[in-house]
Amino acid sequence: MQLDQLVFHFNEAKKKFDRGEDTLDSINATVVTCIRLLKSVKTVEEWPGPGKKLYLVYKQGEKLSRPFLKDQLINEKEFQTLWSKFFRSIDREQTTVQMAPLDISKLIYNIVVPFCVCFDLWKSASRKTPGTFFEVVLGTMIAGVLPFSMQRTKHIQLPSDLEKNIPGALPGETIESVSTDIVFQETGKGLVIPAKITTRERIVQPFAHQRILDSVFGIGHYISYLVCVSETQLSNKGRKVQDICVPGTITLFQKHLAKLGGVYYLDPPERYLALSRAGVINISNIGSLFSEDLAEIVKRLNQIQSE
Amino acid sequence: MQLDQLVFHFNEAKKKFDRGEDTLDSINATVVTCIRLLKSVKTVEEWPGPGKKLYLVYKQGEKLSRPFLKDQLINEKEFQTLWSKFFRSIDREQTTVQMAPLDISKLIYNIVVPFCVCFDLWKSASRKTPGTFFEVVLGTMIAGVLPFSMQRTKHIQLPSDLEKNIPGALPGETIESVSTDIVFQETGKGLVIPAKITTRERIVQPFAHQRILDSVFGIGHYISYLVCVSETQLSNKGRKVQDICVPGTITLFQKHLAKLGGVYYLDPPERYLALSRAGVINISNIGSLFSEDLAEIVKRLNQIQSE
Repeated sequence: MQLDQLVFHFNEAKKKFDRGEDTLDSINATVVTCIRLLKSVKTVEEWPGPGKKLYLVYKQGEKLSRPFLKDQLINEKEFQTLWSKFFRSIDREQTTVQMAPLDISKLIYNIVVPFCVCFDLWKSASRKTPGTFFEVVLGTMIAGVLPFSMQRTKHIQLPSDLEKNIPGALPGETIESVSTDIVFQETGKGLVIPAKITTRERIVQPFAHQRILDSVFGIGHYISYLVCVSETQLSNKGRKVQDICVPGTITLFQKHLAKLGGVYYLDPPERYLALSRAGVINISNIGSLFSEDLAEIVKRLNQIQSE
Repeated sequence: MQLDQLVFHFNEAKKKFDRGEDTLDSINATVVTCIRLLKSVKTVEEWPGPGKKLYLVYKQGEKLSRPFLKDQLINEKEFQTLWSKFFRSIDREQTTVQMAPLDISKLIYNIVVPFCVCFDLWKSASRKTPGTFFEVVLGTMIAGVLPFSMQRTKHIQLPSDLEKNIPGALPGETIESVSTDIVFQETGKGLVIPAKITTRERIVQPFAHQRILDSVFGIGHYISYLVCVSETQLSNKGRKVQDICVPGTITLFQKHLAKLGGVYYLDPPERYLALSRAGVINISNIGSLFSEDLAEIVKRLNQIQSE
């Protein structure tokens, strides 16, 4: 019953998102259903993670959920408080949310991760749905803060000379635009948000896409900010949670492929925070995107002359 | 029984390949076992493909194999004839194989695809093994033609200033080199062979790696030649074989990410051949790599001053 409701609310959110309609009530209903569902799970184990982090792992029959950061766990009432506070604290003129970044992070963690955990336990065949929900949530929340002039889209239109006459193309098939997950743009410049639950071997994609955007539009016109949930993985040996990190690869890509504007995590891996402190690439908690960085990004984009 | 033999011969080939030992007998024994196994399959259907191509689809219980190009089918004796002819026709001084390119293609098709088909029918859980076998076969055959001075490896060593001091790295973890499948190199230059059964969404990888190699070593020092089996997919609606092609994406990558030296297929999709004829990127049948192009590639690498 509650599971049907979860799928119903998610489908509503997705449908509205695709049509450009207000998704907030559907997202809220989705999250509330997830929190209630998870309260019904009888077996919840504590698994230690990197640093001093502690994770909850939900068990349902044979199924293990992905890890849930214990110190982020909140109840339905706390969730509703953070939710209303977020939307009340938006200052669209300054492009900020006037709220503690750690509270913003906690809110977004509790919108996205309970949904992932529910799908692990009861809908594990629908592997792509958590990623889709993550996109809907991020797209909605970022749109709520950005200037109205920035239009959300999924594809960056390439200059028309690139689109025509591709040998081997089927009738009606134009050049595939850079298939970014979320884009906010005005004429010829914008903000690209690849949204990934976890990066793994797909870490190359946002860097390669950034490189193409730099080459097609000139450096600085489109800037990518990769947003991820975490890099955690359950390690059954020793019931531990570990982070799968490739700091060397990221260093190499940032230096020799293209520069990302930054990477945001709902649960940032310790080792990537070290990379960030060393100045290789800006990697931080999702909260700071809303509390500070979006304002900076929009300022930078405004300085670019659009043609 | 024969299936055990297949796994045994494959494991031997892989073990020898990793040690740099002669793998030819093990590869030959692997292929012969596959040809015999496939003769035992009672249900073989004909499915039409793009252009006028006709494919065989093997059925075993519930399992369907990937499509096998009907006009490439040969028996054990024909296979042995092509096999000996190939190795007799190698002119290492000229870096060529003095044999009709279509015969070379047919030989390689019959080394690789029967193995894939057997794994589809009887070992479908081992999803990565066909790709590994493909690497072993290509690495072995290309090594047989190239000058002895070119060393085979899996990783291109990056300049030492890049390797050190990666923040967030674990003890002993150096920067990850560009993880190419097969590399043949001499001091500071070489030939990179990403080997993929099929590209799908991983098509970005070889272009991104080429871009990094261009940036780190200078354009022309390392040249990538992507080698693939096919882009075919079974379409159950209408029992057809179709090619999954992205000519627009390849055009965009070749123009704005990095230039590959070429792409070779065991069964080239029609639409990519059109892309090649239009001069966007060199895409052809695997045979021409051995009969002509390797000589050209080595000549080009020899013109580069190695530091």
